[in-house]
Amino acid sequence: MRASDLVFATQREDPRDAEVASHRLLVRGGYMRALASGVWSLLPLGFRVLERIGAIVAEEFDRAGGNQLLLPALHPVELWQETGRNVTMDDVLMRVDSKLGSLVLGPTHEEAVIAAVGPDLASYRSLPAFVYQIQTKFRDEPRARFGLMRTREFVMADGYTFDVDREHMRVSYQRVYEAYLRVYRRLGLKAVPVEADAGAIGGDVNHEFMVPSAIGEDHFASCRACGYQANVEAARRGRGPDRVLPPIEQPRVYATPGAPGVREAIAALRAEGAPVDDDGMLKCMVAYDDAGRTTLVLVPGQRSVRLPRGWRLAGEEAFRPEGPFFLGYVGPVGMREAGVRIVADPMIRERPWWATGNNAEGEHVVGVRVGVDFEVDDWIEVVEVVDGDPCPRCGAPLALVRAVEVGHTFQLGQLYSSRMSRGTFVGEDGATHPFWMGCYGIGVSRLIAVIAEEYQRDGGLAWPLEIAPFQVAVVPAGSSDDVAATAANIAEELERMGRRVLLEDRGLSFGVAARDQELVGAPLWVVVGARSLARGEVELRNRVDGRTLTVQLRDVAQAVDAEAGRIGERAD
Amino acid sequence: MRASDLVFATQREDPRDAEVASHRLLVRGGYMRALASGVWSLLPLGFRVLERIGAIVAEEFDRAGGNQLLLPALHPVELWQETGRNVTMDDVLMRVDSKLGSLVLGPTHEEAVIAAVGPDLASYRSLPAFVYQIQTKFRDEPRARFGLMRTREFVMADGYTFDVDREHMRVSYQRVYEAYLRVYRRLGLKAVPVEADAGAIGGDVNHEFMVPSAIGEDHFASCRACGYQANVEAARRGRGPDRVLPPIEQPRVYATPGAPGVREAIAALRAEGAPVDDDGMLKCMVAYDDAGRTTLVLVPGQRSVRLPRGWRLAGEEAFRPEGPFFLGYVGPVGMREAGVRIVADPMIRERPWWATGNNAEGEHVVGVRVGVDFEVDDWIEVVEVVDGDPCPRCGAPLALVRAVEVGHTFQLGQLYSSRMSRGTFVGEDGATHPFWMGCYGIGVSRLIAVIAEEYQRDGGLAWPLEIAPFQVAVVPAGSSDDVAATAANIAEELERMGRRVLLEDRGLSFGVAARDQELVGAPLWVVVGARSLARGEVELRNRVDGRTLTVQLRDVAQAVDAEAGRIGERAD
Repeated sequence: MRASDLVFATQREDPRDAEVASHRLLVRGGYMRALASGVWSLLPLGFRVLERIGAIVAEEFDRAGGNQLLLPALHPVELWQETGRNVTMDDVLMRVDSKLGSLVLGPTHEEAVIAAVGPDLASYRSLPAFVYQIQTKFRDEPRARFGLMRTREFVMADGYTFDVDREHMRVSYQRVYEAYLRVYRRLGLKAVPVEADAGAIGGDVNHEFMVPSAIGEDHFASCRACGYQANVEAARRGRGPDRVLPPIEQPRVYATPGAPGVREAIAALRAEGAPVDDDGMLKCMVAYDDAGRTTLVLVPGQRSVRLPRGWRLAGEEAFRPEGPFFLGYVGPVGMREAGVRIVADPMIRERPWWATGNNAEGEHVVGVRVGVDFEVDDWIEVVEVVDGDPCPRCGAPLALVRAVEVGHTFQLGQLYSSRMSRGTFVGEDGATHPFWMGCYGIGVSRLIAVIAEEYQRDGGLAWPLEIAPFQVAVVPAGSSDDVAATAANIAEELERMGRRVLLEDRGLSFGVAARDQELVGAPLWVVVGARSLARGEVELRNRVDGRTLTVQLRDVAQAVDAEAGRIGERAD
Repeated sequence: MRASDLVFATQREDPRDAEVASHRLLVRGGYMRALASGVWSLLPLGFRVLERIGAIVAEEFDRAGGNQLLLPALHPVELWQETGRNVTMDDVLMRVDSKLGSLVLGPTHEEAVIAAVGPDLASYRSLPAFVYQIQTKFRDEPRARFGLMRTREFVMADGYTFDVDREHMRVSYQRVYEAYLRVYRRLGLKAVPVEADAGAIGGDVNHEFMVPSAIGEDHFASCRACGYQANVEAARRGRGPDRVLPPIEQPRVYATPGAPGVREAIAALRAEGAPVDDDGMLKCMVAYDDAGRTTLVLVPGQRSVRLPRGWRLAGEEAFRPEGPFFLGYVGPVGMREAGVRIVADPMIRERPWWATGNNAEGEHVVGVRVGVDFEVDDWIEVVEVVDGDPCPRCGAPLALVRAVEVGHTFQLGQLYSSRMSRGTFVGEDGATHPFWMGCYGIGVSRLIAVIAEEYQRDGGLAWPLEIAPFQVAVVPAGSSDDVAATAANIAEELERMGRRVLLEDRGLSFGVAARDQELVGAPLWVVVGARSLARGEVELRNRVDGRTLTVQLRDVAQAVDAEAGRIGERAD
């Protein structure tokens, strides 16, 4: 393609609201333009990348037995009422008033896909089935940011598998999981599958695919020793070494007026001469469990709590004067007797005794022991993993890695199918069963940003070959007719070989053209200069590896192939 | 592909609400399933057709210099306020409540495309430009019907051209117009470009592309003699022969109590002995023109009126006792003097005198003459064309053809660009000008239905080769291993040649499989039967032409190519 035929314009200035490089480069390069907050137009350059990513996903999903289809964005609200997600996902659903009733814009399609293909899978003979779409989703995201990273309208590739039982579901899941790994490899991303929390989608086993990135908004815990990987929301912590402390005969109460926080209490206790180290305070949080029961949650004072799904922290209402809790001085002793359920993280077992609130204004108590001074009703892992925590599998220290989520796969089981009227098939036994399902999502438009973030070069971009809007830019350096004609010939030859080529034909100086081409981001450049051309040579730049080669004119095609191979193009 | 890997299920029963064949066949064949009224899921078979149509549009638009992009479905309502279409298209706009303000779902993208690419076209040097997208549109259609024909969510290919002046706009328009003709030819449709009314899009010159069809909801007027073609909403009528009538000295008033309608008045006048023929009454409609002025519109009594855009018929308020109009007895005489503007269709000139209301209760007057008894302020063509009217170009009789609209192209001029903040470029003269634009729409999902309607065969479908979900079905007739193995080999060979092939491998009887395959609609079938196989032969069915050939096993690929060529596959 000729640059003069490509509708694009670069800009020198960074967009003012851009916090990350991909956002900046994609706007400056003319890949996209905001139409509203979190709503982007993909301009021709951006569309080319989107289309390539979509094609790779479709190829790999097809190889995994996928059937592509297209589900609507408009869903009748009644469909979401079948699963109750009109309530549980209320905050992200965009609602549409229409002449024919209340509709929602689909942020995900579990309900819609069951309604669409459930009836076609009415017999076990038609299973397993794997369908997917590449389609636009809508989320009423209040904090759209980072360009294409978090938006309100985005393109997803979402797949759904249907099986007769759990075992077959796992086989289907594994097949799609492997397709995911192939997709990311072809996209030039080092995506790490980690165990994850199921969030609003639900189900048992699930994986997030994470790309380590400085701009990530998520973290995962990673063990170099045994390979354990899990999102912080799902990561567990192995048992740490038991602390050895001087024994305590009896808990002792200290006056600590005006010291309600963990740090303040430690300081106040030490000022009173109490033997409290930095890790020695209990943090006692009043919460409601998923059944609404008032529950005291105990973790070490320095740790963050990750409440189980459906639980929530208590508000002011829990600290009524007539109640058992003194705000800032809560402790476990006597709470069970007051009818409060006590849940503790297993870390509480790692110390023989703790300092904690004394359930009285301005008092803390030191030397409180599990099983002696108070009992725990349930041991639940509620501590958020931090860097250096022991791996739950092998005990080696975990590292926390900042990352971007680029995909999520779920073993849903019968979570949705069992609630939906079209969610069943007739089994070999002649009885009706809900489908065993998996669901799978890849953020196609988000991947443009993730890849741009990874493939920055020289203040511009150098896209991976498989998704580059143009794989080779042919750039004349010099204004002679000979230079222009040679550049055009080279572009034509490379296009004939099936390469995506951009011929710089706009009559710009090399410096100006090069600044544009750095943003267009072809990984390979062929630079045709007047002087080298006189020697029958051109320059081949491999912008991914930062190599520059001098190539004989007749060898250009071969040299481009060789460099393309070098930068990891897949043979298939 | 193996039929056992394709997610689809046919059904025997027609859907109850289907009024047309395409709707019936596409549901029965498992191409689509309704999720809500006018909202369809495209199942794998339907998606394959959609994808092929989209690919053909993209190829032809690219050949015409198009740059594909992707604009959002969500538009801030402020964007529509810039052109005022939030009001003029209010009845089809779906509105979305969101955390970040009021949004609409785009039913068309003139505003959005100017906002998206206008800034990239800031200089005349970047013009002309042609961008397009294949994207999902939303219309709050109250009467969704005919399956994919009229829906509330649909896939469109919409293009937009940007030029420096009217002349260049016309060149761009012509290029896209020709791409349209190539698209329809490849889709196997005989689409007729007709002059059309601009509707809610606006602009001057525009064409609708119409496929004559018994299920069409539109009509166009067509002249066999000279090739004039125009939508009834835009069609003009040539001057008919002048009527010769006995001269009238003076208009004469008749008492016609209780005869307010055209037909009743003629009957009443004849009963009084007045010389009035069936075509002799004026129809006088009270209307408001686009400036709100009260206007009397005159057409022959038997004709329907097509008011100009922005005009509307008067209601009861026009017939106040103190006003000039007697409901049922309106006539032109004296109206000008009463301050009423008079507009007449040129047909009024074709008779020397007319019968009409006498502007008095229960009275008509016969022998009223233009230029003598009343004057006309403006002659405007307001009569709707009917079958047999004279062609405006050559005078031969026009035929009205029932048809489906499959595309619409517009020369918008500066209609949108002049109203929008991003709608301008800096010209060679250094001054700022609004773009000269064209816009172009093809209903991609609707085309599935239009083509299905045209390509019904044997109670099923036989798709045109270029868009068939499968071009060849290989169907075993017989259950021997030899038959199955031969079928599989043939399918593999044809797939290697680049054909889209469906191998019937589900172990069904030939009769059952054939009923399914008739709906899947491959235009070519290779039937492998045990008996003919023993002779080294298979059967090749060309379902489009209704031919059946006996083919030697070794010649199958060649014979498939020959039949494919026969049924009009394009060489490129």
